[in-house]
Amino acid sequence: VGGKTVSLSGMEPKLIRFTHDAPPLEVDQNGEFDAFQMYVQYVRLARPRFRTPLLLWHGGSLTGATWETTPDGRPGWQTFFLRRGYDVYVSDAVERGRSGWQRFPEIYPTEPVFRSKREAWELFRIAGSAFPAEAFDAMTKSIVPRWTSTDEYALDAYAALLERVRHAVVVAHSQGAAYALALAARAPERFAAVVAVEPSAVPAEAGSVPTLILWGENARAHSFWAPIVATSQAYHRSLQASGVDAAFEEMHNKSGPPNSHVPMMDRNSDAIAERIATWIERRLRERRRASPRRRVLADA
Amino acid sequence: VGGKTVSLSGMEPKLIRFTHDAPPLEVDQNGEFDAFQMYVQYVRLARPRFRTPLLLWHGGSLTGATWETTPDGRPGWQTFFLRRGYDVYVSDAVERGRSGWQRFPEIYPTEPVFRSKREAWELFRIAGSAFPAEAFDAMTKSIVPRWTSTDEYALDAYAALLERVRHAVVVAHSQGAAYALALAARAPERFAAVVAVEPSAVPAEAGSVPTLILWGENARAHSFWAPIVATSQAYHRSLQASGVDAAFEEMHNKSGPPNSHVPMMDRNSDAIAERIATWIERRLRERRRASPRRRVLADA
Repeated sequence: VGGKTVSLSGMEPKLIRFTHDAPPLEVDQNGEFDAFQMYVQYVRLARPRFRTPLLLWHGGSLTGATWETTPDGRPGWQTFFLRRGYDVYVSDAVERGRSGWQRFPEIYPTEPVFRSKREAWELFRIAGSAFPAEAFDAMTKSIVPRWTSTDEYALDAYAALLERVRHAVVVAHSQGAAYALALAARAPERFAAVVAVEPSAVPAEAGSVPTLILWGENARAHSFWAPIVATSQAYHRSLQASGVDAAFEEMHNKSGPPNSHVPMMDRNSDAIAERIATWIERRLRERRRASPRRRVLADA
Repeated sequence: VGGKTVSLSGMEPKLIRFTHDAPPLEVDQNGEFDAFQMYVQYVRLARPRFRTPLLLWHGGSLTGATWETTPDGRPGWQTFFLRRGYDVYVSDAVERGRSGWQRFPEIYPTEPVFRSKREAWELFRIAGSAFPAEAFDAMTKSIVPRWTSTDEYALDAYAALLERVRHAVVVAHSQGAAYALALAARAPERFAAVVAVEPSAVPAEAGSVPTLILWGENARAHSFWAPIVATSQAYHRSLQASGVDAAFEEMHNKSGPPNSHVPMMDRNSDAIAERIATWIERRLRERRRASPRRRVLADA
């Protein structure tokens, strides 16, 4: 979905050997290339319980694989929400995973950033958390390079996805949650509700979409996350002041240590998803009550 | 699956702004990183017809998305083989898609190669073929960068996958087919059968695994593919000379123009998959007859 064709010119041709069974091929590095498109995979149920599809948007340095299986091998939130009765769309943000990426500095102005295992351990607040630490290496294998100069491309592609599905619940994480809140403010008509799990940023404009913001209990104690928690709490207050149905909650792990930055991978991932589903479904019921002919909620 | 941890040192730290809600973060570019791992997604059936899983390995410049949906929106070979009764594994080769990629020249010795739309049109033999030309742009949006110096990393990860599943049918395309034939020769005990759709190379060693090699009817008329068709035909003859159950066939499109290099996307994609399935299932029946206690074929 999304993307556009870009033209490159003025680069020297290169001789490249693609396979040992053929001579090197002179490759013209110039020409037309697709750029900024986004890969989206959907699973539609034969008998969905909810008419509104649910979109899962991953965080920085990760891909849609975030939602498939937890690093310790349990079913992820994709399966949770499918079993719950939603058609579920999983995407790889622009320049991540199956969306591909483009030349730098010719197309992206900056270099990519590579997240080390130590940085993931630190930024994802793994130590002493509900994250299954024995599966840390399985998680870091799912880390991919990312750029920090591609926000507008990513937003355009997510906007194109929302236009395609027309109307959705978006459950998003970290950088994906920053994109989701930004688009909920720009195009509220596309959203039934938005759930921002540890959003890495909040928009300047207040939206009108029902919004749930979730943070781990100890995010405030972390030097990188503390100011972002504070900004997102201020954003929540501004939503409430405008009369928007908005909630700001800490995630709690009744049976163990606090949640990490990646709660969809934590040991209590299903409990967090359950909390999110309950919150969403109350909003879907309210929409249905407000406009019964739309039958947003099919049979619940 | 697969991969190993690599350490980088001696690079200068960088100040990087990840989000407008937080100050720039000093990122130490050094440290430990996962490298050469491979993303694999499996769909297992509640009641598979075949005990042996089927692995789909994509070609160069593409990802596992190759197998999901054709560019013109029909179900792809992943769905075909699931409906046929196989557990199906779809992977993204090392440095493609969700497998992520690593720094160059620090980790990969060379630069990546970007396939232009014109090169795809030419190398994939789109003009006048069974490929749905109106969906060419949808296909080129699925193209990702690739390296030409990573064969051994890719082979190691595919070998790790085969070790994990123990025994499989592999249906592979182009570069993926070159990897599949190479591993069938190196580790024949892992293969029930291998199907090489337009393999971009063949190994030096002859294998012992039942092998089907498929080419489009006009591949011989194409300057890049002609010598590769000839080499793979010679490989087929060497397999036959060693008494291996091997077939070399041209794909035919009864109802229209010849197949392109990407027959899983062509208008007759289901007919080609049907031919492949029929060939595979004869081999599975023969294995079962040869060693009935293994019950390779559950109920066919």
